Amino acid sequence: MSDALRVGVLGSRGKVGQAIVEGVQAAPDTDFTVGVDKGDALDAFVDSQTRVVVDFTHPDVVMDNLKFLIDHGIHAVVGTTGFTQERLDQVSEWLSVAPEVGVLIAPNFAIGAILSMHFAQKAAPYFDSAEVVELHHPYKADAPSGTAGRTAKLIAEARAEAGSAPMPDATSTGLDGARGADVDGVRVHSVRLAGLVAHQEVLFGTQGETLTIRHDSLDRTSFVPGVLLGVREIGAHPGLTVGLDGFMDL
Amino acid sequence: MSDALRVGVLGSRGKVGQAIVEGVQAAPDTDFTVGVDKGDALDAFVDSQTRVVVDFTHPDVVMDNLKFLIDHGIHAVVGTTGFTQERLDQVSEWLSVAPEVGVLIAPNFAIGAILSMHFAQKAAPYFDSAEVVELHHPYKADAPSGTAGRTAKLIAEARAEAGSAPMPDATSTGLDGARGADVDGVRVHSVRLAGLVAHQEVLFGTQGETLTIRHDSLDRTSFVPGVLLGVREIGAHPGLTVGLDGFMDL
Amino acid sequence: MSDALRVGVLGSRGKVGQAIVEGVQAAPDTDFTVGVDKGDALDAFVDSQTRVVVDFTHPDVVMDNLKFLIDHGIHAVVGTTGFTQERLDQVSEWLSVAPEVGVLIAPNFAIGAILSMHFAQKAAPYFDSAEVVELHHPYKADAPSGTAGRTAKLIAEARAEAGSAPMPDATSTGLDGARGADVDGVRVHSVRLAGLVAHQEVLFGTQGETLTIRHDSLDRTSFVPGVLLGVREIGAHPGLTVGLDGFMDL
Amino acid sequence: MSDALRVGVLGSRGKVGQAIVEGVQAAPDTDFTVGVDKGDALDAFVDSQTRVVVDFTHPDVVMDNLKFLIDHGIHAVVGTTGFTQERLDQVSEWLSVAPEVGVLIAPNFAIGAILSMHFAQKAAPYFDSAEVVELHHPYKADAPSGTAGRTAKLIAEARAEAGSAPMPDATSTGLDGARGADVDGVRVHSVRLAGLVAHQEVLFGTQGETLTIRHDSLDRTSFVPGVLLGVREIGAHPGLTVGLDGFMDL
Repeated sequence: MSDALRVGVLGSRGKVGQAIVEGVQAAPDTDFTVGVDKGDALDAFVDSQTRVVVDFTHPDVVMDNLKFLIDHGIHAVVGTTGFTQERLDQVSEWLSVAPEVGVLIAPNFAIGAILSMHFAQKAAPYFDSAEVVELHHPYKADAPSGTAGRTAKLIAEARAEAGSAPMPDATSTGLDGARGADVDGVRVHSVRLAGLVAHQEVLFGTQGETLTIRHDSLDRTSFVPGVLLGVREIGAHPGLTVGLDGFMDL
Repeated sequence: MSDALRVGVLGSRGKVGQAIVEGVQAAPDTDFTVGVDKGDALDAFVDSQTRVVVDFTHPDVVMDNLKFLIDHGIHAVVGTTGFTQERLDQVSEWLSVAPEVGVLIAPNFAIGAILSMHFAQKAAPYFDSAEVVELHHPYKADAPSGTAGRTAKLIAEARAEAGSAPMPDATSTGLDGARGADVDGVRVHSVRLAGLVAHQEVLFGTQGETLTIRHDSLDRTSFVPGVLLGVREIGAHPGLTVGLDGFMDL
Repeated sequence: MSDALRVGVLGSRGKVGQAIVEGVQAAPDTDFTVGVDKGDALDAFVDSQTRVVVDFTHPDVVMDNLKFLIDHGIHAVVGTTGFTQERLDQVSEWLSVAPEVGVLIAPNFAIGAILSMHFAQKAAPYFDSAEVVELHHPYKADAPSGTAGRTAKLIAEARAEAGSAPMPDATSTGLDGARGADVDGVRVHSVRLAGLVAHQEVLFGTQGETLTIRHDSLDRTSFVPGVLLGVREIGAHPGLTVGLDGFMDL
Repeated sequence: MSDALRVGVLGSRGKVGQAIVEGVQAAPDTDFTVGVDKGDALDAFVDSQTRVVVDFTHPDVVMDNLKFLIDHGIHAVVGTTGFTQERLDQVSEWLSVAPEVGVLIAPNFAIGAILSMHFAQKAAPYFDSAEVVELHHPYKADAPSGTAGRTAKLIAEARAEAGSAPMPDATSTGLDGARGADVDGVRVHSVRLAGLVAHQEVLFGTQGETLTIRHDSLDRTSFVPGVLLGVREIGAHPGLTVGLDGFMDL
């Protein structure tokens, strides 16, 4: 057995699961042990001496999965959605009797998106103006995107905390919608264009200079590096961590 | 006397006029003869053997200026606004008895803006989607900008002529304004940001690829190269020309 | 039988061929008839009353394919490489006795790339400076890309024809390579970055303004819209056409 | 006397000094007291009860200025260059007997540039690839720019500390210079273009996504907001601070 970290995947037959299996196999410091999906026994992780399991499954089954993994001393990196405060409390309770086990639950594993939001928060107090432009494929149902809405809210909070003056805006005439949607005072613009995947620009401006933070997701596997980051760091972070930024030095 | 083209300026003491004087003086193939402003006699152009006069003055005086220049066989490059069809007809009538004289009347001398609009028109039929994002300083009163509105209209016309299908857009939920203003079916987004001057992006998309045409005006003298282009070409274009693109090989 | 244009595909089992089959099937105005690959008989196109065949095969077989198609009055849209002047002459000779048949041979079907190069040529004479930045995935062997090299050459030619002055550049000190590669006097910069696909920016600048033409290929199927454009137009263009721009109104 | 912070300027008749005077006058929370330049007496700051002096002068006089200001209990915000370790030690010694006085010495007051460098350092360990593209007016003598070189070095250091693997790069054929300059393993590309001012992009990439941090300086007064930030914060930071980031919450 090599020194590589032994990693299993829950939900391994879905598109996302497949990409994670391939990522674990391709990384030089991780070994893929076993994939488990609907109908398979969780014991396979124990039998294969798996140290970390990645769970991209379904809200209906993720709590049972976590109970099993924690009981067997296996770390978990979880991208499954639907975690209420009640569920998080339950996970923390299970972990209280398994102090060496780590569980990471994260709504977003795209490192570029996490960094974008973090940098936007940090930059916000130092500029007079901030706006968000997000650009997606035209099959997206919501506008603005969830990430753009969250980014705008974080900017608004950071500006409020810093006591920033209202942004300058002399617009007095024009067409409805030209100035975008208003999210807590931050303007958000949604472009929908054939050929695009998922992209976002946060623009900041002050006298004589601008700062732009742009994130481009160019394919559907952009969560893989973030999942691998979680896998590598989970052993050093026992207990419950919510959000991948908890493992990043920001 | 050198071989350089002898160029005078009407409205020479304004900010725009000053920038043009400096541009004419700096160019290797033009000589600045004389500047004329409110209260000065137009005869100065005749006395100085001026071949081309650039007029950035006022609708109240520009017609008298043009009558004088045409009568004296001097070409005119005009950025002054307020030209109705009636005024254009009058200029044409004056020119009919001075067949060697050229007059260029242009609403926009920014070469990058003219090319942007031209390229946008040409590209429009070949893409499924097109949107316009314009970005300006926050002291601008109108949104979208006049140029963005015109660009969107040109795109819409080119698509209509080509029989393009409606753009794909699955947006079914969201915030008011997120998808921008609707100009003849083309979405236009207006960003207002401290530190910016005047910028525009036209985005086109089809399966697997996008094309973006971006124009940045970084200072207030960006009309100078276009004026010099007009000055150099006017001698070869007798009669009335409306729009600088009439002198460009597009 | 519907009114839709009947289209077959040669090389239909390769990745590129598959994407074309899917594109033909998805378009509302084309019907997919039959795919032919190594070992299949070309007669299938005749039996299925195919009007246009798309050929993305191999230099070893493309000439035999074209002979068959022309002899049977079927139009051809060809992306296969390896066409020397001798081969083009041969195709023209075959077409001379089939005056109603059209053959399009194109090295590049990415509409955005074709437009980028065309616009770059048109814009070049009107700016003092021009540079090219191309950005690709890090598994690319050549730098700069072939498209970037061609684009730079076209810009250099357009500037030479227009008698443009040398570009201003006061660089007198620095590190080797900082100013990029020199392609006929146009600087070309190659970025290699994980996560990218294929992207190119052409930057033009003059006093106070810049114009940027950016092309992004975001996935490997970006040739499909160009192939469909060729398929739709070939019937109206009998004889040999080299380059998809021959079918575009530019 | 209002509650506004009383601010004076040393070097007030230079271009930079003038811009600072205007910035201090325009800000709602600062009052401009007096400007001092070559030949003027420093006593004017004492007479006018100035609390903070901004010094953009010359290495020959800045040490005398600082001695006077510290002796008189006046805070200093310094953009003058030429501070060796010896000079910094001397300033610290003077401050040791004036514990309530603050001195900020900063090589760069452009907030966007400082944030760009900081964010680049933070992001570097999380991506496989990083490159820098800087774009400037064509009258710049050095390539790459000092800021681009520093940014590349910071990225290289952050990657080394994190134990990052070498960046992927399969380039095996091409033109000299295409891949830019090599600064500690980070590629840096320098674009020189008429119409530009000072711009920089830092590009990061990993599987399926990229992050771009772009800084645009659009005019020569982009240092003013950073100077005002220093002026406002200096009272809360007694002693010597080197670098404006020492006053920022990053």
